[in-house]
Amino acid sequence: MQGKVIFVGAGPGNPELLTLEAYQVLQEADVVLYDALVGPEVLDLIPSRTQKIYVGKRATNHSHKQREINELLLDMVRQHECVVRLKGGDTLIYARLADELAVLQQARIPYQVLAGITTLSGTAAALGLPLTSRDCGSELLITTVSTYSDLETCKAVMTFLNRGSGVAIYMPTFRGQHVLPNLLEVGVDAELPLLLVVQATLPTQRQQSTNLGQADYDQLCAFSAGDPTIFLLGWSFANYISTAMLSKVLESVHVH
Amino acid sequence: MQGKVIFVGAGPGNPELLTLEAYQVLQEADVVLYDALVGPEVLDLIPSRTQKIYVGKRATNHSHKQREINELLLDMVRQHECVVRLKGGDTLIYARLADELAVLQQARIPYQVLAGITTLSGTAAALGLPLTSRDCGSELLITTVSTYSDLETCKAVMTFLNRGSGVAIYMPTFRGQHVLPNLLEVGVDAELPLLLVVQATLPTQRQQSTNLGQADYDQLCAFSAGDPTIFLLGWSFANYISTAMLSKVLESVHVH
Repeated sequence: MQGKVIFVGAGPGNPELLTLEAYQVLQEADVVLYDALVGPEVLDLIPSRTQKIYVGKRATNHSHKQREINELLLDMVRQHECVVRLKGGDTLIYARLADELAVLQQARIPYQVLAGITTLSGTAAALGLPLTSRDCGSELLITTVSTYSDLETCKAVMTFLNRGSGVAIYMPTFRGQHVLPNLLEVGVDAELPLLLVVQATLPTQRQQSTNLGQADYDQLCAFSAGDPTIFLLGWSFANYISTAMLSKVLESVHVH
Repeated sequence: MQGKVIFVGAGPGNPELLTLEAYQVLQEADVVLYDALVGPEVLDLIPSRTQKIYVGKRATNHSHKQREINELLLDMVRQHECVVRLKGGDTLIYARLADELAVLQQARIPYQVLAGITTLSGTAAALGLPLTSRDCGSELLITTVSTYSDLETCKAVMTFLNRGSGVAIYMPTFRGQHVLPNLLEVGVDAELPLLLVVQATLPTQRQQSTNLGQADYDQLCAFSAGDPTIFLLGWSFANYISTAMLSKVLESVHVH
């Protein structure tokens, strides 16, 4: 017996951000292998008869654990018809999908990939914040901490910031000490608006706005408290920061 | 009487890519104002009692139509409790949300924004194509044709391409004649893999792979045939193009 694997993006945490197809696939799965970033409320949507296996990685032991996940995936798909591999956010961005796909391709096991709401889209929607704009900001750059180790790449980031475009940094705060100083060093304007959003779309979501030059890194780390965090940088966010964020608490919609 | 407006991202066209909250909101709306890029299968999910108003823009008459849409939105929300503004793709990327938000803010009308699957996520999932990778390509740059008019920005794009990162160009082919020549002019490697995906996630989805130097622009335009198209550029896509795309037709999942 050999089944198939379906990779499912669970979105940023709020279960209402699952797609219709992701929800349906979770109802039909025999086994679900899930990551640390998948929210508990998403797991609650999976029927109790379904086998759920936690495969979250430990920070200090990545490579070993990935091999274990690969082996478990093969093992499960040889025993079950429908194995779901559930990842936080989207499956295609910062989800290290390639390793697992390669293992399945090599073993000639069929698979399918379902898109999920990215943490960035969830963040922007939760704030009512357009990520591109017509007048300025016709690009959107999605990056992570490693980008800012290289000053040449920081300069390329600056080219987009100077055009008014938005930059999103998926950033574990404890690893990003160099990001803001390196941007300032290559000449990014210290007045550049910076927005930090923690645990977007969850009831525990919180955000803070400042600008590049005034940002106190230790204070931002304390605010983030080790939870999933996105930094948003861009002139096009200035208007948002000055209006919506400081004034209006919008009515929320409850759909379940 | 004054209601609220909910902005909903319809995703790239396949109705199964709606989120649970978007689906629910469409069931509860009194009126739905929808764009040209919203697929007919998504519209079929809206109850027949709901008033549906097409507000797609004509290519030659943008500014006037946007003013009309703004007025219609205000008019509708003064008559109904729940007005849905349905846009193709996500609501936050290339959806010109800012104009409509500003109008509502000024009139002090409550609104909420729901995220949608971006056309890019839908495209990548449909192809089983990771958009970032661990070894190379830790950035993802989302752009449109106007980016490539400016050679300095083309050079910044090249910095990311040289690092192995992926670049997605949301591109109406009939306006993008300058894009590929300008990338070659600033020195991007002619061997760079290029993937063109048309009408991603729909039954009419089609794709073609080539490389920057060999791409025949007129031929790509003919292939696109004026339908919504994404160009994907990046060394990290080479492996995908050489394996998955040329070999395997994966089993599809039908969830409705």
